[in-house]
Amino acid sequence: MKEQDFIQIIKSILNSPYIGDDCAYLKDFGIVVSQDSLVEDIHFKKEFITSYQLGYKTVMVNISDICASGAKPKYLTISLSLPPNTDNGFVENFYKGAKAASGNVEIVGGDITGADKIYISAAAIGDTRGRKISSRSLAKPDYKIIVSGEHGNSAKGLDILIKKSRLSQTEGINNKFIKAHLMPEAQIEFSARIAENITQDYAMMDTSDGLADALFQISKASNVIMNIDTKKIPHDFSVDMQTVLYGGEDYQLVAAVPENLLQKISGYTIIGSVEKGSPSVKIDGKIFNEPDSSLFNHFKE
Amino acid sequence: MKEQDFIQIIKSILNSPYIGDDCAYLKDFGIVVSQDSLVEDIHFKKEFITSYQLGYKTVMVNISDICASGAKPKYLTISLSLPPNTDNGFVENFYKGAKAASGNVEIVGGDITGADKIYISAAAIGDTRGRKISSRSLAKPDYKIIVSGEHGNSAKGLDILIKKSRLSQTEGINNKFIKAHLMPEAQIEFSARIAENITQDYAMMDTSDGLADALFQISKASNVIMNIDTKKIPHDFSVDMQTVLYGGEDYQLVAAVPENLLQKISGYTIIGSVEKGSPSVKIDGKIFNEPDSSLFNHFKE
Repeated sequence: MKEQDFIQIIKSILNSPYIGDDCAYLKDFGIVVSQDSLVEDIHFKKEFITSYQLGYKTVMVNISDICASGAKPKYLTISLSLPPNTDNGFVENFYKGAKAASGNVEIVGGDITGADKIYISAAAIGDTRGRKISSRSLAKPDYKIIVSGEHGNSAKGLDILIKKSRLSQTEGINNKFIKAHLMPEAQIEFSARIAENITQDYAMMDTSDGLADALFQISKASNVIMNIDTKKIPHDFSVDMQTVLYGGEDYQLVAAVPENLLQKISGYTIIGSVEKGSPSVKIDGKIFNEPDSSLFNHFKE
Repeated sequence: MKEQDFIQIIKSILNSPYIGDDCAYLKDFGIVVSQDSLVEDIHFKKEFITSYQLGYKTVMVNISDICASGAKPKYLTISLSLPPNTDNGFVENFYKGAKAASGNVEIVGGDITGADKIYISAAAIGDTRGRKISSRSLAKPDYKIIVSGEHGNSAKGLDILIKKSRLSQTEGINNKFIKAHLMPEAQIEFSARIAENITQDYAMMDTSDGLADALFQISKASNVIMNIDTKKIPHDFSVDMQTVLYGGEDYQLVAAVPENLLQKISGYTIIGSVEKGSPSVKIDGKIFNEPDSSLFNHFKE
């Protein structure tokens, strides 16, 4: 996949101000909208995840995009494409998982079609009323870089699943790493605390493609240096720093916010600050212009 | 595919008032939202359609859902999942086709991922301001049944493509049947004329799954008989009535509307009327309780 090439092509053809963030901010309706897909053997393998967990994760992945914008997740549509041998139990458990994950978010539609493998695409709508909406292009020098939660747990969970593929899924879900991978939690509260209290422009992304990737994306879109101290990144002691930075799929949030916000909110960890300079990520004092790992693209081409 | 079984399961789990129409009407934002997918070898085959045409059709198929609700199509997100060998030209031409089809509708986002085949899913948002929104459950006795355009052309076009697979796609698109199949036109004007002028409740659907399917869906959701006269259905003289009724993918509109609307609008054809009685479609005087054809599920399982 030449995803970045493709995105450049799409941007140049559409020439739209909306393309660039995970959510598009549609001011005329006071909403943000996003769409995200999960594809069998690319994003998940049936041997590692139950249909209930897949429904749960589908909803959380899409809610997470809305949380990254600062909007309040409200509605979802889900499109399922399924192989002809799919039984009713798969659909039933998928939707039970989706319903369990959705909380106050309402699943309002979608469609169902045939396919050779399982292909899931969901679109999410968030309410922007009473919220300040983020953009990855709005990080500014002297802003603090803050994160939610622990980083690297999902990638470690996937690693456990791959190495011990006979691990029972029922036992496995009690393991915090496996749970982080199969049933992540979108950071609804963290997002609300920031978006409801902030007055200045700010950048926020989720860590779906890894914490380091999010930092690089923000640095490029905002034309700044994202300077972080790895000692400050919350992570389990058993997870190595490569995994913490590049693991992906934790669906935590990382934000660059003005320091004056921080006295108004709680439940965050400062991991660094934004500096003037050409777009890059400074990790423990060392400048990186590009991400430095492909370790965790387990299923990707 | 046991699509109807699956939809029943989903309805029972979600227990949501939004599920039932192709679009969900989100009154708090004044929008409708829908999502529709196109899957390689289920909905299209690469040998019959160019990437430009596929982009064009993706947009029209999704705009058509919004038109069926009576709302004004405004925004689209498109999620593309592509095999690793996909070249830049595919993405470029797909988006050129999408852009050409989109007109005043803005493509505001989506994502791009890997897959083994081409999977496309798009979500569409429509503006309900100044429009009366339809539901398939709102056809009422004595309403007239009206349609846009010609019916059966798309299925005939597909038939030509299948029988003459070496037909050049460049020559083919000048053929009205092939054009109807590869580059259908959503009925934006027809929809607007009805939704802007009607005051009473009404039912409207597109004919994506065939005119007869739409009539059956409305009859069941509204608990009425849809009585039609096949002689009145606009169609090319070379297309047989089975294809006209069951062909599908014409993306024309069929609506059940009060007679008093008809003096206010133009560009429709009356094909019958709604009658009291148990849900069914009466075709030239003969009652059908279920659709009577699987002829045109060319690629479906």
